[in-house]
Amino acid sequence: MSYYARPLARLIEEFGKLPGIGPKTAQRLAFHVLNLPRERVKKLADALIEAREKIRYCSICGNLTDEDPCSICSSKTRDNTVICVVENPRDVVAMEKTREYRGLYHILHGAISPMESIGPDDIKIKELLDRIQKTTVKEVILATNPNIEGEATAMYIARLIKPFGIRVTRIAHGVPVGGDLEYADEVTLTKALEGRKEI
Amino acid sequence: MSYYARPLARLIEEFGKLPGIGPKTAQRLAFHVLNLPRERVKKLADALIEAREKIRYCSICGNLTDEDPCSICSSKTRDNTVICVVENPRDVVAMEKTREYRGLYHILHGAISPMESIGPDDIKIKELLDRIQKTTVKEVILATNPNIEGEATAMYIARLIKPFGIRVTRIAHGVPVGGDLEYADEVTLTKALEGRKEI
Repeated sequence: MSYYARPLARLIEEFGKLPGIGPKTAQRLAFHVLNLPRERVKKLADALIEAREKIRYCSICGNLTDEDPCSICSSKTRDNTVICVVENPRDVVAMEKTREYRGLYHILHGAISPMESIGPDDIKIKELLDRIQKTTVKEVILATNPNIEGEATAMYIARLIKPFGIRVTRIAHGVPVGGDLEYADEVTLTKALEGRKEI
Repeated sequence: MSYYARPLARLIEEFGKLPGIGPKTAQRLAFHVLNLPRERVKKLADALIEAREKIRYCSICGNLTDEDPCSICSSKTRDNTVICVVENPRDVVAMEKTREYRGLYHILHGAISPMESIGPDDIKIKELLDRIQKTTVKEVILATNPNIEGEATAMYIARLIKPFGIRVTRIAHGVPVGGDLEYADEVTLTKALEGRKEI
């Protein structure tokens, strides 16, 4: 039984289906929407439809884009001899925020995970190999996540790419900047020691 | 500068305008929407528009409704000799959830608050007085919030209604059920003592 008028109950229900939105937050958001100017509500509704309709995957790198190829793949100013391999589009955003990387990307859309029965054929590894053979790539940077699945995926891809005579690198492991040695786990500290550099 | 394709950036921005939705949550929600089936996204967008278009205030009690008068005001089974006065529509939901109250409501849409320069004329007190004079109300229950503004509003309304010879009551103050005496503040405990009953 609902204590709300039907359209309101429906909106609360729809908000509640979104991830991380519980019943109380859904109610709060719905009441907020009722108090918004009509054009603001329309803007949100349009943004939802437009994003879902227009955003697709870049046919080259697999990133989210509204034009194909995406702005990074079609850019003239980016270094097309380097490809950075990441697990998902959010990782591209994280990398871009560094403003340090000027090469291209390849989005795997996942990582190899036997636990979730995701095999090498379920992520975009084949597309990466095709890309390497067709273009003049000199280096592939493996930037999958520093966890078991990400490491396994990186190792797997490295072994496939090495025969092409291309440089394959993995992003460095170590203690995060601003972190505290006291709270770093043993594996991270071991990696940080192994990767030590002369200063 | 945005690292996202335009429609995606726009959706993240729109989500970010909602209360309690920070940049990270907005991003998470937007990515979630991209992975939803089209019809699910359309349902959410439609629910937004429909709620904003169809929900209005009941001309009698001021509650949110899609039909005027609202289902409570037009109900034949409710006791129309009692009106419970609350600050906002969410309070109606809270009251209805008790399943104990079978009377009508009056929503003030706020409380008197000199600090926020909300005076008696800025909330629906006049409408309550009109209602009392036009109908056969025998009791008005003041269920404004148990804070300074709510108490002041209750006192103000009580003084206005008393001359009509109608019973005016205030919901009881005391220790919340399931609470702990240790953590109850002095004012609440004092009120709980004052309101003690023989058992």
